Amino acid sequence: MNDKQKVRRILDAAKAAGRASLTAPEGKLVCDAYGIAVPKEGVATSAAEASRIAEGMGFPVVMKIVSPDILHKTEAGGVVVGVKSAADAASAYDRIVASAKAYKVDAQILGVQVQQMIQGGQEVIVGAVTDGSFGKLVAFGLGGVLVEVLKDVTFRLAPATRDDALSMLDGIHAAQMLKGVRGSEPVDREALARLIVQVSQLVSDFPEIAELDLNPVFASASGAVAADVRIVVDFAPKVPRYRPAEADVVVSMKRIMQPKAVAVIGASDETGKIGNSVMKNLINGGYKGRIYPIHPKAAEIMGHKAYKSVKDVPGEIDTAVFAIPAKLVAGALVECGEKKIAGAILIPSGFAETGNHEGQAELVEIGRKYNIRLMGPNIYGFYYTPANLCATFCTAYDVQGSTALSSQSGGIGMAIIGYSRSAKMGVSAIVGLGNKSDIDEDDLLLFFEQDDNTKVIAQHCEDLKDGRAFAEVAKRVSKKKPVIVLKAGRTSAGAAAASSHTGALAGNDKVYDDVLRQSGVIRAKSLRDLLDFARGVPILPTPKGENVVIITGAGGSGVLLSDACVDNGLKLLKPMPPDLDAAFRKFIPPFGAAGNPVDITGGEPPITYMNTVRLGLEDERIHALILGYWHTIVTPPMVFARNMVQVIDEMRAKGIVKPVVASLAGDVEVEEAAEYLYAHGIPAYAYSTEIPVAVLGAKYQWARGAGLL
Amino acid sequence: MNDKQKVRRILDAAKAAGRASLTAPEGKLVCDAYGIAVPKEGVATSAAEASRIAEGMGFPVVMKIVSPDILHKTEAGGVVVGVKSAADAASAYDRIVASAKAYKVDAQILGVQVQQMIQGGQEVIVGAVTDGSFGKLVAFGLGGVLVEVLKDVTFRLAPATRDDALSMLDGIHAAQMLKGVRGSEPVDREALARLIVQVSQLVSDFPEIAELDLNPVFASASGAVAADVRIVVDFAPKVPRYRPAEADVVVSMKRIMQPKAVAVIGASDETGKIGNSVMKNLINGGYKGRIYPIHPKAAEIMGHKAYKSVKDVPGEIDTAVFAIPAKLVAGALVECGEKKIAGAILIPSGFAETGNHEGQAELVEIGRKYNIRLMGPNIYGFYYTPANLCATFCTAYDVQGSTALSSQSGGIGMAIIGYSRSAKMGVSAIVGLGNKSDIDEDDLLLFFEQDDNTKVIAQHCEDLKDGRAFAEVAKRVSKKKPVIVLKAGRTSAGAAAASSHTGALAGNDKVYDDVLRQSGVIRAKSLRDLLDFARGVPILPTPKGENVVIITGAGGSGVLLSDACVDNGLKLLKPMPPDLDAAFRKFIPPFGAAGNPVDITGGEPPITYMNTVRLGLEDERIHALILGYWHTIVTPPMVFARNMVQVIDEMRAKGIVKPVVASLAGDVEVEEAAEYLYAHGIPAYAYSTEIPVAVLGAKYQWARGAGLL
Repeated sequence: MNDKQKVRRILDAAKAAGRASLTAPEGKLVCDAYGIAVPKEGVATSAAEASRIAEGMGFPVVMKIVSPDILHKTEAGGVVVGVKSAADAASAYDRIVASAKAYKVDAQILGVQVQQMIQGGQEVIVGAVTDGSFGKLVAFGLGGVLVEVLKDVTFRLAPATRDDALSMLDGIHAAQMLKGVRGSEPVDREALARLIVQVSQLVSDFPEIAELDLNPVFASASGAVAADVRIVVDFAPKVPRYRPAEADVVVSMKRIMQPKAVAVIGASDETGKIGNSVMKNLINGGYKGRIYPIHPKAAEIMGHKAYKSVKDVPGEIDTAVFAIPAKLVAGALVECGEKKIAGAILIPSGFAETGNHEGQAELVEIGRKYNIRLMGPNIYGFYYTPANLCATFCTAYDVQGSTALSSQSGGIGMAIIGYSRSAKMGVSAIVGLGNKSDIDEDDLLLFFEQDDNTKVIAQHCEDLKDGRAFAEVAKRVSKKKPVIVLKAGRTSAGAAAASSHTGALAGNDKVYDDVLRQSGVIRAKSLRDLLDFARGVPILPTPKGENVVIITGAGGSGVLLSDACVDNGLKLLKPMPPDLDAAFRKFIPPFGAAGNPVDITGGEPPITYMNTVRLGLEDERIHALILGYWHTIVTPPMVFARNMVQVIDEMRAKGIVKPVVASLAGDVEVEEAAEYLYAHGIPAYAYSTEIPVAVLGAKYQWARGAGLL
Repeated sequence: MNDKQKVRRILDAAKAAGRASLTAPEGKLVCDAYGIAVPKEGVATSAAEASRIAEGMGFPVVMKIVSPDILHKTEAGGVVVGVKSAADAASAYDRIVASAKAYKVDAQILGVQVQQMIQGGQEVIVGAVTDGSFGKLVAFGLGGVLVEVLKDVTFRLAPATRDDALSMLDGIHAAQMLKGVRGSEPVDREALARLIVQVSQLVSDFPEIAELDLNPVFASASGAVAADVRIVVDFAPKVPRYRPAEADVVVSMKRIMQPKAVAVIGASDETGKIGNSVMKNLINGGYKGRIYPIHPKAAEIMGHKAYKSVKDVPGEIDTAVFAIPAKLVAGALVECGEKKIAGAILIPSGFAETGNHEGQAELVEIGRKYNIRLMGPNIYGFYYTPANLCATFCTAYDVQGSTALSSQSGGIGMAIIGYSRSAKMGVSAIVGLGNKSDIDEDDLLLFFEQDDNTKVIAQHCEDLKDGRAFAEVAKRVSKKKPVIVLKAGRTSAGAAAASSHTGALAGNDKVYDDVLRQSGVIRAKSLRDLLDFARGVPILPTPKGENVVIITGAGGSGVLLSDACVDNGLKLLKPMPPDLDAAFRKFIPPFGAAGNPVDITGGEPPITYMNTVRLGLEDERIHALILGYWHTIVTPPMVFARNMVQVIDEMRAKGIVKPVVASLAGDVEVEEAAEYLYAHGIPAYAYSTEIPVAVLGAKYQWARGAGLL
């Protein structure tokens, strides 16, 4: 058990002394309290005791004079390294004491320190930092200068589980070093993982431990020992972020996203005004709830009775869309609060993004006071298609589907809308988060988690206000529904000034990368990836195993598709079992190649594609198919597309459902074929071998993270 | 000067002895001959001589007994390390000889070896391998187990220049280690580069040196010394690849690509036959030269007089397109040879790709005998649009432009055709290379180099038959015209069994990566990259400097565009000079942000885009612009597009020409705007922040490689 009281006493002493870090002996005591191995040591006051102590810890040992009067121990002949036996320890004791006395006759000699000499094994670093967004993080990397140069380090939220810790050992580029290289023994993975877990537990139990470095830790076949400990403390009280209970978040978010009644504050009859666009979108979008235009003078707007204030509205209102100048927002928001409206959609700009932080703080305060959630300010609004709700000034969006998207930036939001429309991507929601004064990504996750209309969640963000809350929610939600995140600002900043080694290694983006993965989130590398994954992942069935097979008419596509599999972490079924290989060969010309890719060769008729794909779907050892189509006169694009859909439908009728993606190489007719395939459950791309494979890779990444594989 | 005779003598001795490697002393002598520093050594036969020798090489030194009768030198007390002075050297000599005599009374003592003790500095590895495609390659990496695990090594064609060698020092991930880390001194870069150059020269001068390892080399501030040398030799004679003189290649390729007369062997009136499709494409494509259908019986095909054999045709024929079964090809090819036709376009399959290697070898032999160049077999043919020539059975392609494309695979060729048509990409040529029995990528490079209709060359390949020839030609051509290569099979194979350390590190793809870069080639990572670069690079003007500025209406796009700049090696002008910053600020709202990205904020009218872009083009400190457009009612997509083209035209009239790319975020109308911008010289993409920046990055990579920046 961890001795928390012991750590508490040490920290209290440091706090009382006004110190910002612990001393090395204090650090060792803290490690001891948490079962983190440090070199054993003891102080002997006789040669016999030195022998006994040394024997107790095992050889070799280092022995050092302990005297307040001797500063330069080595110069005084007060250090002996590499003591290898009990007899040597005894004689070393005598030699050290004699030398010390000779060096300084009147030196007060307290004894001789005997310390375990750690050697061999692999030097690693284990540390912890406190991140502004994610809180306590534990870090792991190899030790040494080279690793510092290569920044080969990995992070997890603290406290980390044993599985987290083990995944860290495999999560560095140089992971092979821990498995034994050139005849060296593999390290004790369990011991090292335990040490990582303990460090993560320690900093979680004591938030005042701001940074911690165990550097180096000697990891070997017989354990992991921290040779040096450095602990930075910070006793300044932290103000925890305000965060409503999850159940309350869901209650509010449901009212906001699925309102029975919407007020438009600043509704207008005048074309070109935001309040006019919002009214049009609500009405033309087909929203069936009540719509209340709010306007200081008008009696009616677009056929709906208008009110001076939300307070004048007779019934309940769930959502208020703001389309008024910034300076009028606070006043109207108070009225919304008094009316017990669940959420304010703050389209207006002119707040934090223009430097008006006070104005935004005022809104947050009002929201908090009246328990009204704020979306924005500085947003385009949101769409929730299951309710035909377009609470936005942008054009209406009407292709219903199961993907929920959000963006921090309005521009990216517009790109999401455009792509969705162009690609006929069905969406359940598109939400603008803008300045994120209140509602943020994790609030959306909580709503979409319980929303049966949403099967996948795709979010663009530039920062996470509360990365820890996001990670915690995402970890749970991603087990049920894929969560895809495009984190912008990947390559900016870098670590802020930090006083520890680990802190200096905590480059902003690597932390996001690791924590998002730890949370089961699929990280998109680019805007197009986000959009392609958002479109393709929900329509792909979940694979039941790792064996992927490529079936291609074009050998050239097969090679590129294989490259893409490696790039996207997909495992090709290799070698192909002989009976399966023979079964494929029955369908393809003698000069075709089975193996994997299955190269059916160009110029084959549709039946060859159908036979091989049917076999691929039927065989239980195959879990996913990647198709490489080659446009020929014998098998035109739409013939191929229809035949593939036919085979897949036929299999579905038999209860066989596997993910299939397709890469189409051919003249422009392949674009129509790709669209047809996509519409029928096969993510397909013209002129690309990499995108369909990346989409399948995203689905696999999700399934692995959710523990389904 | 390098002492080649000395090396020749050592190699001759090894060859005579039938050895496959050199001994360590031989290896040292070879190094000596090429001025590659190895630890100095000498044999002393007296204490005084030992002092003298040691002083001559500098301390510390290692001293070892030299005696044929003493095998275990250390056991005999015959080794002293770390000798630090002349006096110590003398006494060490006496001690070693005395010990040796005591150890074995009758031992014959030849003296004491004095060897320079190399220490400190950075351990690196320098090596050389013989690659099947690229021939001699020189390799460089850091030494040690970790580097072996991380495979942090870089290659160049040998012989390497000083610049090549210096680029290798910067070409490893851990490059920082050579520049001094944590207070260590930087290594002597010139000395290390010299050593690399000498190794590369050595293996180039002596092809029988198959593999070479200098491992480790100690690189420090005072030089680079190879502590261990290993040389593998192979005296089996190599058969050089047949390769016509470059001038002859160009003469043939010009006749083939720009023929005055084309014969279609197997021309047909029957729809669906390849020989019919080829005829149609030639005629309907608008080819103005003479067309001779060859058919055993027909008198006329599609309005052209037919002949039984090319030999019956009265005039000269430049190009013969084959559309007959594989088994008839050889016979017809002989007739083409007798007719002195320059090139045979071998569409038929049924050769090496189906295992018929003999059939293909027969064609090669005929081609060689008659000096007729072979394209294919197993191809779709080729297009050369400046001559309106569609010598293929695929659909006609008619969008003239300046991009020449080729593919090894027919499927990828079809994707190229489809994408080109869909994207309205102007091309000068599309060529299928198929089995590459004769004509390959470097032949095409030689033709396109001198072809004024071609400005950029984009090639898909799975292997390079003769990587060295390709690299040599590409290095020259890429100085004039961008060469873009998609090398498939990136992630396959790995290194073949190799007996040296360097050989084991020579992962196939890393070699391609390094050599293509050394040759000035832009390597596309994916099929879409190849196509996007092929389309965008030729229309972008060449930048005159490295300073890139982002001007964006959407802050969110600005962040993603900045990420993409880092990913693509582009340098943002930062910090923005104060006067320039002030100049930008004049045009943007007070809450907008100058700096870089210049964030003009959303909702700005067209004039703000125009003013800022005009300023960006006019200021001489800015060399390229990336535009981030945000679709709003105030500035609709086509208004933005037309205004941008207007500003750029206006600037062009003033002689200001800079590369500009655009990322368009918005509803589907941005697709039309992107097309308009592209058609007017601005590569623009809807819903993507990364692709336009990647295209600009490709242009920059080319310009740097060509020495234009």
